[in-house]
Amino acid sequence: MSAPAEFDLIARIRARAGGRDDVVLGIGDDAALLAPPPGRQLVVAMDMLNEGVHFPQGTTPADLGWKALAVNLSDLAAMGAEPAWCTLALSLPCADAAWIDAFLDGFRGLAARHGVALVGGDTTRGPLSACVTVHGFVAPGTALRRDAARIGDDVWVSGTLGDAAAALSRLSADDAPPGSEAAHASAALRTRLDRPTPRVELGRALVGVARACIDVSDGLLADLGHVCRASGVGARLDLATLPASIALRALFDAASRAPLQCAGGDDYELCFTAPEAARDNVLHAAQMARTPVTRIGRVVEGEGVVVVDASGMPWQPPRVGYVHFD
Amino acid sequence: MSAPAEFDLIARIRARAGGRDDVVLGIGDDAALLAPPPGRQLVVAMDMLNEGVHFPQGTTPADLGWKALAVNLSDLAAMGAEPAWCTLALSLPCADAAWIDAFLDGFRGLAARHGVALVGGDTTRGPLSACVTVHGFVAPGTALRRDAARIGDDVWVSGTLGDAAAALSRLSADDAPPGSEAAHASAALRTRLDRPTPRVELGRALVGVARACIDVSDGLLADLGHVCRASGVGARLDLATLPASIALRALFDAASRAPLQCAGGDDYELCFTAPEAARDNVLHAAQMARTPVTRIGRVVEGEGVVVVDASGMPWQPPRVGYVHFD
Repeated sequence: MSAPAEFDLIARIRARAGGRDDVVLGIGDDAALLAPPPGRQLVVAMDMLNEGVHFPQGTTPADLGWKALAVNLSDLAAMGAEPAWCTLALSLPCADAAWIDAFLDGFRGLAARHGVALVGGDTTRGPLSACVTVHGFVAPGTALRRDAARIGDDVWVSGTLGDAAAALSRLSADDAPPGSEAAHASAALRTRLDRPTPRVELGRALVGVARACIDVSDGLLADLGHVCRASGVGARLDLATLPASIALRALFDAASRAPLQCAGGDDYELCFTAPEAARDNVLHAAQMARTPVTRIGRVVEGEGVVVVDASGMPWQPPRVGYVHFD
Repeated sequence: MSAPAEFDLIARIRARAGGRDDVVLGIGDDAALLAPPPGRQLVVAMDMLNEGVHFPQGTTPADLGWKALAVNLSDLAAMGAEPAWCTLALSLPCADAAWIDAFLDGFRGLAARHGVALVGGDTTRGPLSACVTVHGFVAPGTALRRDAARIGDDVWVSGTLGDAAAALSRLSADDAPPGSEAAHASAALRTRLDRPTPRVELGRALVGVARACIDVSDGLLADLGHVCRASGVGARLDLATLPASIALRALFDAASRAPLQCAGGDDYELCFTAPEAARDNVLHAAQMARTPVTRIGRVVEGEGVVVVDASGMPWQPPRVGYVHFD
């Protein structure tokens, strides 16, 4: 293992930064110089991933690089923004060139998909942690906000729910025989935990179609709860409609799936509301974005999120959302 | 000590975020919405401070809050930018309301001086660490870059050098009797370490006056070395001209001051070059910014930074700059 000084690290990072015409000056000065497009609003999000808190020990550096950017792009997706630039602060117990290269491969793999340039940041010694700030654009007045849900709106969610939480729950007790169907399902869940897909294309396609939007990072009920509070409304969800992946269905029965889908974090799907009259438009946006969406409930008067089972009885999750400090 | 959940933390942070007319949507959604001024370039810097690496254990939360923003504003200052917005990712071993309030008081104290709004970020559990991204503006083509030094330029530095490194060197061996002049000098040095002054006004005043500029975070020789490399030039500094504070002079003789001034980090002064013909303009800019500046050498042909003593002999520092990974 080589141990490059910070400036070699910076050269490694710069070589994988990616370019854009609107980057006037990227990595290598005291700050980046960027040219925002005229007449657009800037959308900025920042998320930090700490080892043992946001990703399990043993997560590969390539997966961590991907995820550190993915969780941030997911925030831009939830605003309907077009991603553009990011900065990265990386804290490492030791400088290991192979580790850095693998991290950057994962990071760059996702950045390139969305045309995101890495324009600056910081590398430092310390506990393993990756902090990213992303920048994107929206036309003024078009961002998808949490406070825009209206009574009568449909509630929708992209993709499937509960996979990441299911993977976490199996981390210490995965008894699937190698090569078995269960092992394949387990690996599929783990990919969802390690390489979440930020729904950037869907978010952008929903501008002008959806009303409120949020990304599901802390769990469906917790995150939709934020939308309800911000909008001064309640929501009623049908448990039976919550989308589940084939892998989740293969490994968890309906009763054990429900808490994972309602309260499990780290899915990074979009949960959004839209008027009933916009159903066709929502489905068209989803098709354009090649992202499945499912109607899972309604925005109602009142407050809080209620989940009802097939018999119409309220279903109570064992625990709502991920509590960051406990 | 209370232990609020993340959402109480966010409420505490939001209450001290500060406002600006160009913040369309601040803390509380998936991302911030900002309105950049037309016709300006965006300047973005990101720095992370880890306990035991960038600040000593026992640093007060208020000092840490100040410093986390200061080191970032210093990067904007080095570009000649006008600060506007910042985001904060805070990793904490436990959620302690009193600690957070003190941190935010320090952070806000500096942010308010420079009209900076806190528009978003992240709070999470983990080792003590504060990561900040700052945003500012410059007119296109006017940023002070590292690659703009020209042979024959004067080399200047703001304020005084070596105070922060001196404070660090005395951390474990401060034998000044309480109330003594030495104790006062020691406290003055410690303030320079804990509450560095980002030279924002000076940086802005130097736009159109200075050529290259950098902030002294890793040590004068290391940082001026970056300017020389980027500009394809060398520099020759006169050791006797390096500015020293009264406190530094009181506690260190000339021989022990030299390495602190040349190689000590954390000063956050600006080191810049300007044509000889611009000397009056530099002094006028410094007066406008109420920041002392000192001419310490010249940009010369060749490469690297040479320091000469009063007899014209090269002086060799024991160690150049702060090595982040070693």
